[in-house]
Amino acid sequence: MAVSVEFHFDFGSPNAYLSHLVIPAIEARTGVSFEYIPVLLGGIFKATGNASPAVTLQGIKNKGEYGNIEIRRFLTRHAIDNFEFNPHFPVNTLQLMRGAVYAKMVGFLDRYVDEVYRHMWAEPKKMDDNEVIELAFAESDLPVEELMAAMQDTEVKQALIANTERSVEIGSFGSPTFFVNGEIFFGKDKLRDVEEEIVALLIH
Amino acid sequence: MAVSVEFHFDFGSPNAYLSHLVIPAIEARTGVSFEYIPVLLGGIFKATGNASPAVTLQGIKNKGEYGNIEIRRFLTRHAIDNFEFNPHFPVNTLQLMRGAVYAKMVGFLDRYVDEVYRHMWAEPKKMDDNEVIELAFAESDLPVEELMAAMQDTEVKQALIANTERSVEIGSFGSPTFFVNGEIFFGKDKLRDVEEEIVALLIH
Repeated sequence: MAVSVEFHFDFGSPNAYLSHLVIPAIEARTGVSFEYIPVLLGGIFKATGNASPAVTLQGIKNKGEYGNIEIRRFLTRHAIDNFEFNPHFPVNTLQLMRGAVYAKMVGFLDRYVDEVYRHMWAEPKKMDDNEVIELAFAESDLPVEELMAAMQDTEVKQALIANTERSVEIGSFGSPTFFVNGEIFFGKDKLRDVEEEIVALLIH
Repeated sequence: MAVSVEFHFDFGSPNAYLSHLVIPAIEARTGVSFEYIPVLLGGIFKATGNASPAVTLQGIKNKGEYGNIEIRRFLTRHAIDNFEFNPHFPVNTLQLMRGAVYAKMVGFLDRYVDEVYRHMWAEPKKMDDNEVIELAFAESDLPVEELMAAMQDTEVKQALIANTERSVEIGSFGSPTFFVNGEIFFGKDKLRDVEEEIVALLIH
């Protein structure tokens, strides 16, 4: 059976970054590639009435601490040493996500994603400041002017909105979200279930 | 290494019930028994500023639907056919949890838990109505008068409060919550991690 796996991602979510680091191993074990779909998490929150954990956890005892425990467990389990919480969090990722839409259209999404994630969550920078973005892109040998221009392109803007609307239509409410042949899985802790679902579909 | 596993439970939580159904298989595979600790989920919510998903999910698109998808997956994975959502939800479980504290003191907690969970989530009844509770206890051949009296006992009341306070002190914010040698795990979807942690501790 053909298996389609979508990863709906926004650079602003640390848990999406951590998922991104683990996806290559799942792709290698299953032989199935994840399609990266750029979405705007702020748009998903607005459309669903949901909010960022940074907002919903405010004033709640123990729950945020537990989230940090689960992050540490994930780092240990997957031997991740390239994660540093972005001190500028929350970072407005509108420009970066438009850049992702463009990079996908033109054909360098993989490299763009790796590099931007590094600038967000491994060597974190204030990636909603155009000067910082341009310097980071240049350091990564990405086409700076082309990307900065694309971020103002109507087609690019519309494509990001369309991705985000479709994501909500098929069930998204937060990040990271995965779809395996249309079946939704939410959260980095569900990557094991995602892999099992892929394997089950491949067998049948 | 000695392994202590605590299951902090309230009869009001469907996900705690579903965990309860799966725990015996984990106990059989690992040889380690779960200690059931009666807590008052409402008290945990009050102490932490958290709230029931029934409250926090209100008006949020897709998130509640996803919770239901995960419940269906859990039912399928564990071949559970004795779950029916309680039509009287949310049920105030104060009396039932006091009964659990007493049953534990006196030594019939296992049977009490099995029976009360059945009356809550397999053959659901309005278990915050004293007449309904008494009929259910009688049907289950539990000591009705003894339990109804115990629910008004100061020592029992205080013990439930103490359990709840300790639960929050060591990290609880919702239900179901597990502690493996003091390490917290939240949610029925973490039972696999709970089992792996038990096995890891047994090996070391």
